Amino acid sequence: MGFFSKDIKTLDDLFVHTLQDIYYAEKQIEKALPKMIDKATDSELVAGFEKHLQETKGHIERLEEVFQMHGVSAKAVHCPAIDGILKEADEVAGDVEDKQVLDAALIASAQAVEHYEITRYGTLVVWAKQLGRDDCAAVLAENLREEEATDKKLTQLGEGRINLQAAE
Amino acid sequence: MGFFSKDIKTLDDLFVHTLQDIYYAEKQIEKALPKMIDKATDSELVAGFEKHLQETKGHIERLEEVFQMHGVSAKAVHCPAIDGILKEADEVAGDVEDKQVLDAALIASAQAVEHYEITRYGTLVVWAKQLGRDDCAAVLAENLREEEATDKKLTQLGEGRINLQAAE
Repeated sequence: MGFFSKDIKTLDDLFVHTLQDIYYAEKQIEKALPKMIDKATDSELVAGFEKHLQETKGHIERLEEVFQMHGVSAKAVHCPAIDGILKEADEVAGDVEDKQVLDAALIASAQAVEHYEITRYGTLVVWAKQLGRDDCAAVLAENLREEEATDKKLTQLGEGRINLQAAE
Repeated sequence: MGFFSKDIKTLDDLFVHTLQDIYYAEKQIEKALPKMIDKATDSELVAGFEKHLQETKGHIERLEEVFQMHGVSAKAVHCPAIDGILKEADEVAGDVEDKQVLDAALIASAQAVEHYEITRYGTLVVWAKQLGRDDCAAVLAENLREEEATDKKLTQLGEGRINLQAAE
């Protein structure tokens, strides 16, 4: 968005801007996940990340569907939030030597990513409904449900044996 | 943390690093909230932000208590994630002219902040327990509960009249 004029005039503009923001975020996550898969050791965690990479590709397609339904072109805008979250994930992972501790760090980083997506999709679903776009809301809610399920799965992995091994 | 040596060797190191990360984040949020209060129009939203500013000061004190309980000095480490989330909040707010739409944007930004805190406190509570520090886990869980309550309140505000006015 421009910095010299106020480009967001209506809730519809804000909705489209936030769609563009999460579209950028999903594309960055699509690039980051293979690196996380490479770093992970626990087979269940690796499988979880691989599954989520496939889901992320689906989320990008669903976002493109929502752009089309709403009559605007699919476009990404720079999202400093996801850049910061992924930069932090990279920095922390680079600072950990032990493989079990690294798995614990990767789970925490992935959950920070999931929570960012959950909050954005949650907001987008509410705004879509308020704009009378229940059709868009329904598609966005599918992405939201998958992000929530991934976060829950990561919590289970984190509470389970991965962290317990790291604490030994 | 250093970039030339792997400073995080154990889950305890990772726990302390993440405490330092959220300590930095809380201090940045303490600085950001007065600016959000100035920008907000809806009286219920202003009151919610003011209440959360007081809670944030309490969260910082609780974190200092946890550092002390765990026998390490309270120290903040740079957290690119919260910096990115707050930068994005600033950029979007600067791009919105209409006061009702700005309130909707502020709610969304505040929820992104809350979700970051929720994921970090959730992780810290799990790790504290795994490290046998149920005392630290109990204090961290108090912060987690307050962040979750704030997020819920923001959802109610967002689903309620603020966004509906913005959609008119």
